[in-house]
Amino acid sequence: MEALILSENSRNRTNVDIFGHPYVIIGSESTAHIHKVAAMVDEKMREINSKNPFLDMNKLAVLTAVNAVNDYLKMKERVDQLENELKKAKD
Amino acid sequence: MEALILSENSRNRTNVDIFGHPYVIIGSESTAHIHKVAAMVDEKMREINSKNPFLDMNKLAVLTAVNAVNDYLKMKERVDQLENELKKAKD
Repeated sequence: MEALILSENSRNRTNVDIFGHPYVIIGSESTAHIHKVAAMVDEKMREINSKNPFLDMNKLAVLTAVNAVNDYLKMKERVDQLENELKKAKD
Repeated sequence: MEALILSENSRNRTNVDIFGHPYVIIGSESTAHIHKVAAMVDEKMREINSKNPFLDMNKLAVLTAVNAVNDYLKMKERVDQLENELKKAKD
């Protein structure tokens, strides 16, 4: 089983299960954090699979990545908005 | 070519290219937003591929999703932190 390297300066090796497949994830993050990330990816893949049952594993994984980056960008917009609000509140 | 459904109540069909493969992404988001998301996934996959050149497409896509969810969680922590700061600043 190949290991997936999540971040550089990696120390922790964590065994996870994503969509029924075992992976070893190597990252500087805590094992608890990596388990949380893997559980979210697994949940996202199962949700997308239930809506798109004819996608093969590749496309399912790519769409899961697309979905996660979409969520990330929305959260980033919220950060920008909050930083502006905070700046105004402090002025 | 199968279409990937990004969000429910979907209207816009956008042709994108991710890691050399064409996809049609259907979402309620604007075409510009979907292009931005696809470009970020493409960049992330290329970056991860350069660090893990022996991963097959499946594992590469899963690791890209893991990476994107990791970024999302970090951004979400920042949102929680800013919301707390804002609450304190307004009190």
